[in-house]
Amino acid sequence: MTWLAVPEGTPFGLTNLPYGVFSTADAAPRVGVRIGDQVLDLAAALDDPVFAEPALNGFLAQGRSRWDEVRARVTELLTDERWRGTVEPALLPLDRVRLHLPFAVGDYVDFYASEHHASNIGRMFRSDSEPLTPNWKHLPIGYHGRSGTVVVSGTPVVRPNGQRKAPTDAAPGFGPCRRLDIEAEVGFVVGAGTEPGQPLAPADFADHVFGVCLVNDWSARDIQAWEYVPLGPFLGKSFATSVSPWVVPLAALEHARVAPPVQAPQPLPYLTGGRPWGLDLDLEVRLNGHVVSRPPYASMYWTPAQMLAHMTVNGATVRPGDLFASGTVSGPEKDQRGSLMELSWGGQDPITLPDGTTRSFLEDGDEVVISATAPGPDGTRIGLGEVAGRILPAADHPHFSQQDPKEQS
Amino acid sequence: MTWLAVPEGTPFGLTNLPYGVFSTADAAPRVGVRIGDQVLDLAAALDDPVFAEPALNGFLAQGRSRWDEVRARVTELLTDERWRGTVEPALLPLDRVRLHLPFAVGDYVDFYASEHHASNIGRMFRSDSEPLTPNWKHLPIGYHGRSGTVVVSGTPVVRPNGQRKAPTDAAPGFGPCRRLDIEAEVGFVVGAGTEPGQPLAPADFADHVFGVCLVNDWSARDIQAWEYVPLGPFLGKSFATSVSPWVVPLAALEHARVAPPVQAPQPLPYLTGGRPWGLDLDLEVRLNGHVVSRPPYASMYWTPAQMLAHMTVNGATVRPGDLFASGTVSGPEKDQRGSLMELSWGGQDPITLPDGTTRSFLEDGDEVVISATAPGPDGTRIGLGEVAGRILPAADHPHFSQQDPKEQS
Repeated sequence: MTWLAVPEGTPFGLTNLPYGVFSTADAAPRVGVRIGDQVLDLAAALDDPVFAEPALNGFLAQGRSRWDEVRARVTELLTDERWRGTVEPALLPLDRVRLHLPFAVGDYVDFYASEHHASNIGRMFRSDSEPLTPNWKHLPIGYHGRSGTVVVSGTPVVRPNGQRKAPTDAAPGFGPCRRLDIEAEVGFVVGAGTEPGQPLAPADFADHVFGVCLVNDWSARDIQAWEYVPLGPFLGKSFATSVSPWVVPLAALEHARVAPPVQAPQPLPYLTGGRPWGLDLDLEVRLNGHVVSRPPYASMYWTPAQMLAHMTVNGATVRPGDLFASGTVSGPEKDQRGSLMELSWGGQDPITLPDGTTRSFLEDGDEVVISATAPGPDGTRIGLGEVAGRILPAADHPHFSQQDPKEQS
Repeated sequence: MTWLAVPEGTPFGLTNLPYGVFSTADAAPRVGVRIGDQVLDLAAALDDPVFAEPALNGFLAQGRSRWDEVRARVTELLTDERWRGTVEPALLPLDRVRLHLPFAVGDYVDFYASEHHASNIGRMFRSDSEPLTPNWKHLPIGYHGRSGTVVVSGTPVVRPNGQRKAPTDAAPGFGPCRRLDIEAEVGFVVGAGTEPGQPLAPADFADHVFGVCLVNDWSARDIQAWEYVPLGPFLGKSFATSVSPWVVPLAALEHARVAPPVQAPQPLPYLTGGRPWGLDLDLEVRLNGHVVSRPPYASMYWTPAQMLAHMTVNGATVRPGDLFASGTVSGPEKDQRGSLMELSWGGQDPITLPDGTTRSFLEDGDEVVISATAPGPDGTRIGLGEVAGRILPAADHPHFSQQDPKEQS
């Protein structure tokens, strides 16, 4: 029980305590912990200059035992009435702070771990082949994304320009993306890094991964479809990737841990071992305020512990601040799909919003909010917060008017 | 003419002056400029604390006019005898310093800009289709690589373990890479960054790119072949990418500028304009001291200015320290191919070394050195130095012995 006034049933109580980076009109960005609708300024409350830094990276690098120690200490500060006098001056109402990107992103890797999503996309992008590629059930497929364009929730997303060619076009054209999409994902934030040639086992997950955030991997499907063979998605993804401002520590997700779906064929031994890290997170995708999907993370085929083991099996290092994301979370049901591409089946079956308008892909002005909750102790829920973004119209490209005038109208 | 004693015909004379990061037994890593076989300690010679940093990034962020100013100042210091007394104490023999990764890598993007390389690889990896994918001549294909495993020349490369499956295998196996390869490339180091939504034109290249280094994009072909469909190369590339320690400023490459091969079809306007940035660099690949290839950079289809324009056309930012590489440089002739995969045609036609041994791919203990020179003024040559690496045997994976015992022998 905290001595602090927190809203009844808050998903940000003592069992959550996520970390973020905030600033105020008076003070530069520094590390805070969310409790209810307030932020505890850790630089003020704890005697460690690492919390005065504008990113979590220094704290992330300190490792599991320090993470546990700080979590215990924050819990004590908020529980033991004796600390009230010390702590109260370090508390700020959430509506008085600005939230920033919580960590400086090292490498960003995006996986493709939902069997339902991969099957759906395979059916649409490669309709002449099996929906799942032959490697899919043997390894968690992933690729590197652009870390420099990872932005915090609330940052507007400008519709990208680019080159695209429909199969029926004779030649590629240029202009604003016409199939702008979301991908509702869960991100894993690496804390303690590794030395070169130190492959991690799935059982090492909690020693190296600090916590979890929500990710919207904005996707320009028309740009992606034209560019991605043979070396994978590039400009179709690199314009923006949004993350939620609060990183929920793994320690808060103990009650969300579940076994993933049965994996058959049995994965190679380097992808096995340890208690599994499936996670029973309930995601919700809202488009202009209307819930369009409820993707269940528990349906994901590959666990994040398997992703980490795979990512390092070749000796590659991880660093504090590396981010790897799950790939789109899509469940087996139609209203559990985590992208518009799947929800509208490539535009063949647009979704209808309460205002009577329909969507196959995003329109300028649309706002997407992805949120999630997880089971806490005793039937409570903890919150992962949300990742939000609004679409702004494409910018005029300096060369735009020269190349495809008919597309400007 | 410099007052300094430099070796006759040195490729590191006054017309080159590349930047690197060095340390000595007594002093921490800081920025230096190479002249002949010496290093000028810029932190000691110039009054700017940015040169006392352990990476070029701070200087890179200062932008083109400052880069030009420092180059002019260094030239003056090394030319005007009056500065000799000041400068001599700041000079160190190259063999007394240790060279480090010259810049902290932001995002690392690898392109695929050689028509000869892409055609060769296409013939081998996708023998049932056209060698070039339909998009290849419309855009410079690229993908993001792992920036956290970019290492400086001389760093040993441990043979990666991984999952691979030959088309004839029933199921994937696990173990050390059996088709370990090089890719001889040229890298471009971003200096001045951009704001979101600021697409660059090819003509903006020299305002944003500081200089050039050599890159060896080590590749595990068996791992890559099994994993890369549909999202591109991942673990087949992410274990190590080596770069040369000296970044040659664009200002030194004025005499190397050439037009690229004719581009047909005509690229879209956003990929055109400005004097072209083809580069007449002569690469050389040595395996255990023996020259196995001489790839001509002038044969590259896409210029680095076009790569930069493409990479930013969707509004994606670039940051100081971003690295983008050309992709394997392969010329039209057999002895101009920049990978062993191409030189040995996938192992069908191994190359023979002077000691009588043959190579299709790299063996443990092999050393690869990639070097390059470029035209300077008046028939001289300037050097890009070299990127070197030796292969160490694969490490035992903690799970190794459990999964594929026969492969351990």
